[in-house]
Amino acid sequence: MGSFWSYLTTKIPSCGVHLVIFNYEKLIALWLKDITCKGLQTSSTFSVATFAPNTPAQYELQFGVPMAGAILCSLNTSLDPPTLATTLQQLEAKIIFVDHQYIQSVSEAIKILSHEKTALASPCVVLINERNRTIVPSKTLDYEELLSSGKSDFNILHPNDECDPISINFTSGSTGKPKGAVYSHRSAYLNSLSVIFRYDIKKMPVFLWTVDMFRCNGWCFPWAVAALGGTNVCLREVTAKVIFNSIVIHKVTHLCGPPTILDKIASLKADEQRVIPTRVDVIVAGPLPSLEIISKVEKFGFDIHHGYGMTEVLGPMTDRSLTTSNPQENDKDIEIQKIRYREGTHNILTQDVDVKDPETMISVPSDGNTIGEIMFKGNIVMLGYFNNMEKTQKVFKGGWYMTGDLGVRNPNGDIEMKDRKLDSIITNGEIVSTIEIERVIRTHPFVKEVAVVGKPDNALGETPCAFVTLKGECTLTSCAIIKFCQEKSLPRNMIPRNVCFEVLPTNSTGKVLKFLLRQKAKTIGSILCGNGY
Amino acid sequence: MGSFWSYLTTKIPSCGVHLVIFNYEKLIALWLKDITCKGLQTSSTFSVATFAPNTPAQYELQFGVPMAGAILCSLNTSLDPPTLATTLQQLEAKIIFVDHQYIQSVSEAIKILSHEKTALASPCVVLINERNRTIVPSKTLDYEELLSSGKSDFNILHPNDECDPISINFTSGSTGKPKGAVYSHRSAYLNSLSVIFRYDIKKMPVFLWTVDMFRCNGWCFPWAVAALGGTNVCLREVTAKVIFNSIVIHKVTHLCGPPTILDKIASLKADEQRVIPTRVDVIVAGPLPSLEIISKVEKFGFDIHHGYGMTEVLGPMTDRSLTTSNPQENDKDIEIQKIRYREGTHNILTQDVDVKDPETMISVPSDGNTIGEIMFKGNIVMLGYFNNMEKTQKVFKGGWYMTGDLGVRNPNGDIEMKDRKLDSIITNGEIVSTIEIERVIRTHPFVKEVAVVGKPDNALGETPCAFVTLKGECTLTSCAIIKFCQEKSLPRNMIPRNVCFEVLPTNSTGKVLKFLLRQKAKTIGSILCGNGY
Repeated sequence: MGSFWSYLTTKIPSCGVHLVIFNYEKLIALWLKDITCKGLQTSSTFSVATFAPNTPAQYELQFGVPMAGAILCSLNTSLDPPTLATTLQQLEAKIIFVDHQYIQSVSEAIKILSHEKTALASPCVVLINERNRTIVPSKTLDYEELLSSGKSDFNILHPNDECDPISINFTSGSTGKPKGAVYSHRSAYLNSLSVIFRYDIKKMPVFLWTVDMFRCNGWCFPWAVAALGGTNVCLREVTAKVIFNSIVIHKVTHLCGPPTILDKIASLKADEQRVIPTRVDVIVAGPLPSLEIISKVEKFGFDIHHGYGMTEVLGPMTDRSLTTSNPQENDKDIEIQKIRYREGTHNILTQDVDVKDPETMISVPSDGNTIGEIMFKGNIVMLGYFNNMEKTQKVFKGGWYMTGDLGVRNPNGDIEMKDRKLDSIITNGEIVSTIEIERVIRTHPFVKEVAVVGKPDNALGETPCAFVTLKGECTLTSCAIIKFCQEKSLPRNMIPRNVCFEVLPTNSTGKVLKFLLRQKAKTIGSILCGNGY
Repeated sequence: MGSFWSYLTTKIPSCGVHLVIFNYEKLIALWLKDITCKGLQTSSTFSVATFAPNTPAQYELQFGVPMAGAILCSLNTSLDPPTLATTLQQLEAKIIFVDHQYIQSVSEAIKILSHEKTALASPCVVLINERNRTIVPSKTLDYEELLSSGKSDFNILHPNDECDPISINFTSGSTGKPKGAVYSHRSAYLNSLSVIFRYDIKKMPVFLWTVDMFRCNGWCFPWAVAALGGTNVCLREVTAKVIFNSIVIHKVTHLCGPPTILDKIASLKADEQRVIPTRVDVIVAGPLPSLEIISKVEKFGFDIHHGYGMTEVLGPMTDRSLTTSNPQENDKDIEIQKIRYREGTHNILTQDVDVKDPETMISVPSDGNTIGEIMFKGNIVMLGYFNNMEKTQKVFKGGWYMTGDLGVRNPNGDIEMKDRKLDSIITNGEIVSTIEIERVIRTHPFVKEVAVVGKPDNALGETPCAFVTLKGECTLTSCAIIKFCQEKSLPRNMIPRNVCFEVLPTNSTGKVLKFLLRQKAKTIGSILCGNGY
């Protein structure tokens, strides 16, 4: 921390040509065109990988790679060398830009690739160094050196068609193996405008990079911030201290990330606390932390926005403001994921979102009860999964992207997410939302985290099984949880038959890996609490 | 004034389907589909005219007509019956919606049409009445009655292709006969977003309708305001008093119009003056009034934006803030029309604007001197002129729309307009900008208005001839004007050889009709001031 990169601020002038012109990038763009990689076909589109934290170089590459006519693949830096090798092979990446922090992993992946019997050449490796901290390994190019050898009169390579791919973003893999969602120039362009509308961002914002640029191209914020002539505050590592310092030093106006960012902010130590000059917008997407955390973050001076979306629709697609002090109608329990769809002006660039019966494709009635699948349609949806026609065909139907999320439509037109299709439980023929069970259990003062999955049952098909993490020194019995659910008037089929206490397995975005819990649930014996359960 | 319509406020909820859904409009849309007009082919696109001031009905029709799959033609209400008849015939309009104020003109136009030997049926006339002020003439339908007969379950007719026409907007005709610029759904959609970006408009604006909706579809503000969930304050007539009252009553945030709106605001009588609660953005496009007027408007509490554009590019395309108290660099003389192109974030949705040699299509150097033609390219340009392939082909070259305006590119990248191509003078083989001569003469304290045109000259080809209107009781001789130009160091070939004092002929937007002055200049004898001129 505190290094040159961590606090470097890039100020981006913008103008109106395809996506955003960024003079500095021309150099990279030029170079990408001129380089002679073995197997590189300059006439056709090729893919270029990046493997870096949120540094200025990573930001620059969000522009430089597409402007060179190539497809940008910013990869999750938590990939291990074998997975990285497989991914690079699938992508047929011609180049990989690597931050010095990850050069070891990438070198190992390249070694694996070179041992494989493949017709494809390994990608060229370009090291993004920091104050010459790392010695440039042999066969590796240096980023800054390449930049300085660029020509300034390079003409940007525009896509032949606005529907041509601009990038590939891998899903977080909460339901299995990550899939590469392919974005078009058109969708990226429109979503960049969309985030500006959605969060009502004025010109010249100051954006703190707490959301990974390798997730949905940083929710399209690299392009949105440039379009508004804003300032980017790049961060190599995200901690509460760094967030508060950045806000005070750079007058940050916006930051984004998974809801774990709220936990981080709330975890600020008393001696690190600094007074925030003006309120800061923090935008999160995913399951929310506790009311206590939200309230704490709010009191620190943050306005919290909560979105619903996924990699396939370029990140969060909806926005609702959260406030604990003055809850909005229907937001009494702010942990329900409601998609404000008809109200407000959040989605003017999304063509359509609906809840439909996935078989008949008929919309569910707006009764707040009938469960269907949430679906998106329009410009801001991926083109499909990279090299995976089978899975692509599975998730698209009649132009609609089927999210795999179950939901209802409320009488006011709002859409409310109930559960992941894969996670929901069918007990005695009825669909039960695990999210609703979790919501009740989470209100127990001793409970820190909870995840509910289905456990196979000979008589009922499945029954709810809860995995619970308790706070600090707290202790609780399984039967106490079950009793709590009964007291909270959960319907009989929603009350867990089993409760396990343990730390929940999560992926890098903090999403609980329910498929692991489902496997575990199969092995758990039944309990008896003496109250009929 | 003060009527029901004048102050009716429409609050528009918005959502994200094609353009903007407006439930109220569904009724109109439905009706447009169901009506059986003689000759109407519901299977193909047809055009629908409106002839109304800025009333709520006119606003509603900006949505209803396109949503019914028809092409919207909002016509200039100053058209006389014979011109209106010709226009309706050209458009093959199936329906014309007429405000009660103009029912007489339209009835006359229809009479003319019915006397002509044409295979086409006259359009159906729909009267937009006001408190039953006018008796509905025979063969005329009533707007409100039609609305109430609509069905609410009408499905919007989306265009087959986003490049299909949404509207036809006639040019103001400052250079001759008005031409119908055809806009596509795509260009209207993107320009609606563009105006929001250009003027950095936040959600829920309050828009005062001082720009005619029959000009470039009100610069696309009907759709932009709806997209932001804003409030529309409709006005039947625009006066200083009404503007100030509306601002105080409705908390207006934005208004637009030709620069004559600034004259109107400045003309406010002392006893009508009201304190404006917060600053109001006023957006004007065209030749600016005097510094004195601008300064006065500014002091009243308005922030002035000045744009450059034309009907063919859907209205103003650029934005610069004007301020007399703290002029920006290069804005020392704020009457120069400079297009900020590289700077700021004004044009992120315009693909490109350039100054080129119209023969070779090579860009002029950024030297501030080399004159070329200003050209636009990209989404926010008309499809072409309605039923006029010849004129369309004349103004498009290699995908560029050639504005007919001469300009230079300054070293900072800004584009500066010098003159209309048709208006510029070629004297002794050199191009002279009449705008620059006018700018100097306008600084004379006695001068209210000025227009310079070329007068044929046997020796030099053309020489500058100035037409001047003096303020109030002021008197001045031709020679005094010429001497003033010499004192201001105008180059010899830019100093007028003739000066006439008279009221300038203007069109309805306040643009001086120079073609009339050119005709007049031919008849004027030369003057001798005894100083070599």
